[in-house]
Amino acid sequence: MSEFAFEILATDGAARAGILRMERGAVLTPAFMPVGTAGTVKAMLPESVAETGADIVLANTYHLMLRPGAERIASLGGLHKFMNWPWPILTDSGGYQVMSLAGLREITEEGVRFRSHIDGSEHFLSPERAMEIQRLLGSDIHMVLDECAPYPASEDEIEKSLLLSMRWAKRSKAAFAGVGAGACFGIVQGGVYPHLRQRSVDELLAIGFDGYAVGGLAVGEGQSAMFDVLDATVPHLPADRPRYLMGVGKPDDIVGAVLRGIDMFDCVLPTRSGRNGQAFTWAGPLNLRNARHADDQGPLDAGCSCPACKSYSRAYLHHVVKANEIIAAMLLSWHNLAFFQDLVRTLREAIGTGAAKRFAADFYANYGRHTVE
Amino acid sequence: MSEFAFEILATDGAARAGILRMERGAVLTPAFMPVGTAGTVKAMLPESVAETGADIVLANTYHLMLRPGAERIASLGGLHKFMNWPWPILTDSGGYQVMSLAGLREITEEGVRFRSHIDGSEHFLSPERAMEIQRLLGSDIHMVLDECAPYPASEDEIEKSLLLSMRWAKRSKAAFAGVGAGACFGIVQGGVYPHLRQRSVDELLAIGFDGYAVGGLAVGEGQSAMFDVLDATVPHLPADRPRYLMGVGKPDDIVGAVLRGIDMFDCVLPTRSGRNGQAFTWAGPLNLRNARHADDQGPLDAGCSCPACKSYSRAYLHHVVKANEIIAAMLLSWHNLAFFQDLVRTLREAIGTGAAKRFAADFYANYGRHTVE
Repeated sequence: MSEFAFEILATDGAARAGILRMERGAVLTPAFMPVGTAGTVKAMLPESVAETGADIVLANTYHLMLRPGAERIASLGGLHKFMNWPWPILTDSGGYQVMSLAGLREITEEGVRFRSHIDGSEHFLSPERAMEIQRLLGSDIHMVLDECAPYPASEDEIEKSLLLSMRWAKRSKAAFAGVGAGACFGIVQGGVYPHLRQRSVDELLAIGFDGYAVGGLAVGEGQSAMFDVLDATVPHLPADRPRYLMGVGKPDDIVGAVLRGIDMFDCVLPTRSGRNGQAFTWAGPLNLRNARHADDQGPLDAGCSCPACKSYSRAYLHHVVKANEIIAAMLLSWHNLAFFQDLVRTLREAIGTGAAKRFAADFYANYGRHTVE
Repeated sequence: MSEFAFEILATDGAARAGILRMERGAVLTPAFMPVGTAGTVKAMLPESVAETGADIVLANTYHLMLRPGAERIASLGGLHKFMNWPWPILTDSGGYQVMSLAGLREITEEGVRFRSHIDGSEHFLSPERAMEIQRLLGSDIHMVLDECAPYPASEDEIEKSLLLSMRWAKRSKAAFAGVGAGACFGIVQGGVYPHLRQRSVDELLAIGFDGYAVGGLAVGEGQSAMFDVLDATVPHLPADRPRYLMGVGKPDDIVGAVLRGIDMFDCVLPTRSGRNGQAFTWAGPLNLRNARHADDQGPLDAGCSCPACKSYSRAYLHHVVKANEIIAAMLLSWHNLAFFQDLVRTLREAIGTGAAKRFAADFYANYGRHTVE
């Protein structure tokens, strides 16, 4: 078994600061993982992603299995070499994207058959194949294949989906066990129903995983419902294993989830917003497309040390956003990734000094000051 | 008068290697100027442009006057600060883009009235306004406003256009003379007619400029006709002034033009090709979109030290080109700019050792080996 160790360095209420040690590097938690969907964190060079403070990125099994193909990446030396990111990579299982992107899905006990959104070609993903693909990519953290229930869904539908996901989790773990590289995380499902979340946790604990993800959230239920689910779920998870809230989220989601004991996050928001002219600041998100920035000589965020803030005015950023220049996506993605890393770093420091709640109160007071403008 | 000095360090036949000294930095010639149309060399950070070896970039008066506006850039501290490029900038006069991009052009003796291709707004460009805009931008090298004759055009049309351009050149110089910052280049016109080119040179010499550009080429006349024009024009230009071939060009154009005594070039080709998946190599251009690169573990160009060649395989570049990822434009633009800088650097070295003709023969022998594939 390769190295995978999680150590908690400090706690503050339910919040934890820790370190995840893996062969390819250490990850400080709470951690935000930039999303490198198709083998690139969009509009960023990998060395710049590392410069923002990211210890780990996420890659999407669904996208990579379709193009360029898992076997091809393996024959080229694995995903780390392919995308020039030598540090840890977490791969999802592909299940979420199959539900949200692929065509003509057919779900059976065995797995899911679907058509590629790129060229319509037919593909099949089972728990075993999802694990094989992640192994071929050379993933550091493998995620089990789960079914992503639609939202909203009835309790019956959620339960049925949950039970299938738990059977798939067992098969995923069995398939992973033969591999002997990296770690494997289970995924808690159960929608907004506390007893189903509890049941899912129990089933996953019986199987046993290196870490536990909370899935099926950030699908439209709203922040309050999401926090309720965390309140009903996280206390049942083992304290000595990392906890990962999948696909989350906005800065205010992250702060609330960290207070509830979550250690890891991933989201496309910083890079997607960066491509849309939106920048995150401690005073809330900012729309650089707005004409009020056209003559603003000031920096995007005086406290930020990213290139967008150090070397350019808001007026320049406004100009390149309006002109659809690629540098706008490059600079704003960089800034937003730096902001998300600053956010989790500051959270780690606050937890270390027992100031997490105060930090959160200050954060919400400032962040809510402006809406998107 | 601010510093502007041109020193020839070596000659080899008609070819010259020199150095252009300006307040904001020195430019080694032959020089290739990356094009930063709208205040950004597309898909590049300015520090990366400098890393490729570029001493100077070109910015487009037409684009910047329309968006964000010359007065606005001036009030923001000038173009160098705005776009984070502290080194020399050459600005064109806007004439060429008015002809190729703007709508509803009306040319009179006074200047040219046109509509913006962005929002249809009406604008007027005269020799005096072109100089004022370049001053507002803070240009290091100002170009006179000229009329770009259509191609093909009759000798009569070319002559008429040429005479207007020469009257405008005189007015441009007079307008520039009051400014006292940077340098001002005249532009030789005259189509493919040697006696008209000669006449244009004579008129410009009578006015007197810091440097002389050859304009109206690379508009469809073909390389052979372009070289003929250079053979008929360059010998009449003063030896002690820099010579700039506008909008050129392909690597094989540049090599031939350097042998004919040209010192400066600009072209969108490296960045535009980079956004289209094309890479320049010493063996000719390469289309990374081609499926034959899908499994190629080798670098784009083993002899190149740019990030695309150092850290990625052809297979990866093929993948990100196919997936329309922004990193494809970033890496291939960087490589192509590095290639163009390597090309002029190698030409400078060859001129310094009296090996320019041999270098050119070797270049053509290798570069012609492949067509775009």
